[in-house]
Amino acid sequence: MSVKPTVLRLGNVNYAQEAWKKLAQIANVVSIEPSMNREAFLKALKDPKSDISKAQIITRTFQSVQQTGRFDKELCDSLPSSVVAVCHLGAGYDQIDTEFFKIRKIQVTNVPELVNDATADTHVFLLLGALRNFSYGSRVLINGGWPKAGPAGGAPVGNDPEGKVVGVLGLGGIGRTVAKRLQPFGFQRFIYHNRSRLSAELENGCEYVSFDELLKQSDVISINIPLNPKTKHMLDEEAFGKMKDGVVIVNTARGAVIDEAALIKALKSGKVRSAGLDVFEHEPQVPQELLDMPQVTGLPHMGTNTFETIKHMEEFIVENVENIIKTGKGLTIVPELKGESWIDSAKMLC
Amino acid sequence: MSVKPTVLRLGNVNYAQEAWKKLAQIANVVSIEPSMNREAFLKALKDPKSDISKAQIITRTFQSVQQTGRFDKELCDSLPSSVVAVCHLGAGYDQIDTEFFKIRKIQVTNVPELVNDATADTHVFLLLGALRNFSYGSRVLINGGWPKAGPAGGAPVGNDPEGKVVGVLGLGGIGRTVAKRLQPFGFQRFIYHNRSRLSAELENGCEYVSFDELLKQSDVISINIPLNPKTKHMLDEEAFGKMKDGVVIVNTARGAVIDEAALIKALKSGKVRSAGLDVFEHEPQVPQELLDMPQVTGLPHMGTNTFETIKHMEEFIVENVENIIKTGKGLTIVPELKGESWIDSAKMLC
Repeated sequence: MSVKPTVLRLGNVNYAQEAWKKLAQIANVVSIEPSMNREAFLKALKDPKSDISKAQIITRTFQSVQQTGRFDKELCDSLPSSVVAVCHLGAGYDQIDTEFFKIRKIQVTNVPELVNDATADTHVFLLLGALRNFSYGSRVLINGGWPKAGPAGGAPVGNDPEGKVVGVLGLGGIGRTVAKRLQPFGFQRFIYHNRSRLSAELENGCEYVSFDELLKQSDVISINIPLNPKTKHMLDEEAFGKMKDGVVIVNTARGAVIDEAALIKALKSGKVRSAGLDVFEHEPQVPQELLDMPQVTGLPHMGTNTFETIKHMEEFIVENVENIIKTGKGLTIVPELKGESWIDSAKMLC
Repeated sequence: MSVKPTVLRLGNVNYAQEAWKKLAQIANVVSIEPSMNREAFLKALKDPKSDISKAQIITRTFQSVQQTGRFDKELCDSLPSSVVAVCHLGAGYDQIDTEFFKIRKIQVTNVPELVNDATADTHVFLLLGALRNFSYGSRVLINGGWPKAGPAGGAPVGNDPEGKVVGVLGLGGIGRTVAKRLQPFGFQRFIYHNRSRLSAELENGCEYVSFDELLKQSDVISINIPLNPKTKHMLDEEAFGKMKDGVVIVNTARGAVIDEAALIKALKSGKVRSAGLDVFEHEPQVPQELLDMPQVTGLPHMGTNTFETIKHMEEFIVENVENIIKTGKGLTIVPELKGESWIDSAKMLC
């Protein structure tokens, strides 16, 4: 009788119960108590009597960080030698310090592409909200202040896309989906900046410019870059200084790609006229000062909060696990680990 | 020396000062005191010593109704015989009872087309907000409740456009612009209902259905019909009863096309899952009960509240006035009055 590989599942399953049930036919799925904290978790990983110390594949959600903390060096070093893969449920895997996993020859997968549509829809909502000062009007309306405030609830007049330049910072899967959705709105031009220029097909009409040119030319800056040590605080005080007066900032990527203190300063001075933010540097902690600004249209990280997208992502992570079990290799290895020979030569677990 | 025709301007000019200055070369532009109420206005119209009793063309804004009241039978009957045209600044001219103006052979113009883009942008914002329960998350965020409320601020999970049917009620200029903007978002199908079917070119992929079929098949109902006696309360309790459970309602047209009490009831029962509303039946008075529902994304009638659109509209109304002065006929006569022989044979005023 062959022994089933052990899969440690961190975080809840919302809609993919069927997929996990099916997986249980070929894997021994274990999880941790909801009350377990990081300290207990790290201890259990090293305790041979614990089920989780037998983990070969770990799946995790963005929210599970609340329980286990970041997948940093300490956590990586605590993993039993049986672990071959960590599968993250989401596109952004900045909670995982991949360099340490690379050293330990543990592959890391994420869920790209499937998040594009829901994130881009959120992005367009926030962009329109910021461009039109809708948050101002909405706050007045909800508070019953419309009759007294007069037309449009006294909201400052907004802008049409007409004549405006959208600068897409990060024309990856999400950035391209945002640009595609924005195309019929009548913006004048789309420019973008990536580390390197894309093919004409992927550019799809967006014009490649340097980072500085993007800051200088954009009326709206649409942020779609992953968070990593190189992109942290990419939009800092110096970057804000290079932007047009009255620029609109939209971020559905990660909060820390913006220096939040510098953003607050720029919003106060009017350098940044308005912002649409789904993510914050120290979320769920957000400075009340930022939230109280009526020129900020904000959401509590709802980018992929849809039934369809969560279900697709949850089902896909199971596919990733199945593939690792059957072929030794995840379907969507993160870019930094792609092409590592130890992954390419990985052996199946069952 | 020829006498300049008199233009009575009701309501403020925000951005088209230049155009009005130019108009003053060929017209005598008069206005009313900001303190004047309807009673005094109706009196002044009949007072031969008053400048406004000489009015030949009247321009008016949506907001000026606060001062003059509706352009109803009483007001129409009070107009001096010199008046040949009323030019309304906006697409929806439901504040004007056109039938009485027709009897008095006074032409009425509106500003169609120019409002399409800004209104459609507002519509898409509200549609995404309602589909995704963004108002719920936004309220929690602004109130500082995110850390306690947990992921997505505890907002109910939303939906992706995937697999959803959008029913456009009123595929006119605004409805078509909404549909065009929504095309890249991945909805399954667009259906529409108008009094009669459009040409394939104007349909642009939207499928014509009866009113009842639209109610029955739509996951999202996008309202873009003008308000008139036939459309008032078109969405009433009976209509809500025919809709899918959990339908999403978006209205940027006029509040009174929906029976607001019936909408509140349908939101309470969950028949309508969420709503995106820029307009309300008795605005600026809105039942606090409706505003307090987190499933309502609301705005205080901001549909065309942009610098560009207001400027274009204000400039266009001056063009209408100029055309009436020079040719006797407005550029954009409202449909009910189009083809009237007394307009077609109108004589220039200068």
